Amino acid sequence: MNIALRVCYDGTNFSGWQVQANGRTVQGELERAIEGAFGASARVTGSGRTDAGVHAAGQVCNFALADGIRISPERVADALNVRLPADVRVLESAAVPDAFDACRSAKQKTYRYSVYFSRRENPLLERYAVRFGERPDFARMAACARLLEGEHDFAAFSSTGSSVKTTVRTVYSAEAAPWADEYAEGALGAHIDVCGNGFLYNMVRIMAGAMLDCGTGKLSLSAVGEALRTGDRELLGKTMPAKGLTLLSVRYPQQIFGREPVPAGETPQGE
Amino acid sequence: MNIALRVCYDGTNFSGWQVQANGRTVQGELERAIEGAFGASARVTGSGRTDAGVHAAGQVCNFALADGIRISPERVADALNVRLPADVRVLESAAVPDAFDACRSAKQKTYRYSVYFSRRENPLLERYAVRFGERPDFARMAACARLLEGEHDFAAFSSTGSSVKTTVRTVYSAEAAPWADEYAEGALGAHIDVCGNGFLYNMVRIMAGAMLDCGTGKLSLSAVGEALRTGDRELLGKTMPAKGLTLLSVRYPQQIFGREPVPAGETPQGE
Repeated sequence: MNIALRVCYDGTNFSGWQVQANGRTVQGELERAIEGAFGASARVTGSGRTDAGVHAAGQVCNFALADGIRISPERVADALNVRLPADVRVLESAAVPDAFDACRSAKQKTYRYSVYFSRRENPLLERYAVRFGERPDFARMAACARLLEGEHDFAAFSSTGSSVKTTVRTVYSAEAAPWADEYAEGALGAHIDVCGNGFLYNMVRIMAGAMLDCGTGKLSLSAVGEALRTGDRELLGKTMPAKGLTLLSVRYPQQIFGREPVPAGETPQGE
Repeated sequence: MNIALRVCYDGTNFSGWQVQANGRTVQGELERAIEGAFGASARVTGSGRTDAGVHAAGQVCNFALADGIRISPERVADALNVRLPADVRVLESAAVPDAFDACRSAKQKTYRYSVYFSRRENPLLERYAVRFGERPDFARMAACARLLEGEHDFAAFSSTGSSVKTTVRTVYSAEAAPWADEYAEGALGAHIDVCGNGFLYNMVRIMAGAMLDCGTGKLSLSAVGEALRTGDRELLGKTMPAKGLTLLSVRYPQQIFGREPVPAGETPQGE
């Protein structure tokens, strides 16, 4: 039986998603839990990798549950959670058609990059956000976002060393919204949400940095346009740190999950 | 020179605020940083203790800076921050009149208790909030809050074993607001903000539990009223866990800090 999982993790103490020789990974922890729970090893296919330190609220993956295991698909989540470390949890599980592949079937991913504005570090915000010393202008950030939306060659928005067939991607939306002051006066920040059909290595982190640099005037809109035209990574600023990045959700043509109650005020959408 | 500090800490790995023989404490870390930075030991006076595991976005404390130290009061924060561990930071520092005592001068404290509603644990929310399996009714929570506001004998809302002169306190406001879905679909929760002239041991955690239990129908409003009248702790539910609690701010008759830029949309208030 092909089982899809919606997985949430705190990336702080992970060497990323993908299994590797050394280092604790989310995929590795999930595969260990599956073998422990069901007595048979399985390869877990994620919608994509996340880097060391990157978090996920709704990563999606799938695996083949060994034949003969008698368990309701919705309870696979609980069977795995009792064996998983505290920083990773399966939020939902469901049976999916054999053809479903969490990576190849994915149509859309949404990432959030979080920064907070403060002269000094805030220990309550440091785990999932990055301190930004200046207060950017949201209108200028939005103007940068408008340039990035659509189908473009995002070669300039990718870290060197990655090899992919094409660097063309479609960004459906990019938005910077003020982050309401949650804990501390003066800690107001920004949530930069980016939705697209796929992302190059470090692409969201470079996009977030470009939007913030436009917001402070450090980077001009024309330089962003030129980066898109020329693919010149040098025109843009540094890649923002991993810990500010969270994979929010992955969407598929069909709805996979949906047995969890939907929070009031939200419209259920195909995922 | 009498120096006031506004301090933020992640309480997860602290045995609370107050110095004790064994265990890492916030007061202890601050006193160590002061001695290291200025070469003279000083006793730090907090607005009050916080328990093991409780967080603070805006704890206030003060200490006597040794004579002869040449430093701008606003830079004391930076001098201490370079010596503090990552989970505690001084957000602001200022010179205050000799008569200022962070504990005795405090007029008002605001605490936040955070819960999230989910069938399963969410690793991105677990650090600063407590999972609540049921979705409470906000109107019933508000009705409970109305009973708690005002001057009352809160004996029933205090853990046994604490010895205080009086168990009468004034709660200026108690509110339960929906917590907008930050990371994960389905993780919507509640922020319970309580403001008062002072709180008994575990009082906010017991109040939050009572409000939530009223919200799910587990506790009746008449039982809450009876608890206030009789002081019977047994009428109320369990004390909620420490990690969901954050001391947001402490207010004083005069404004102490104010050199930090105020976030847009917020009105500066005396603190």
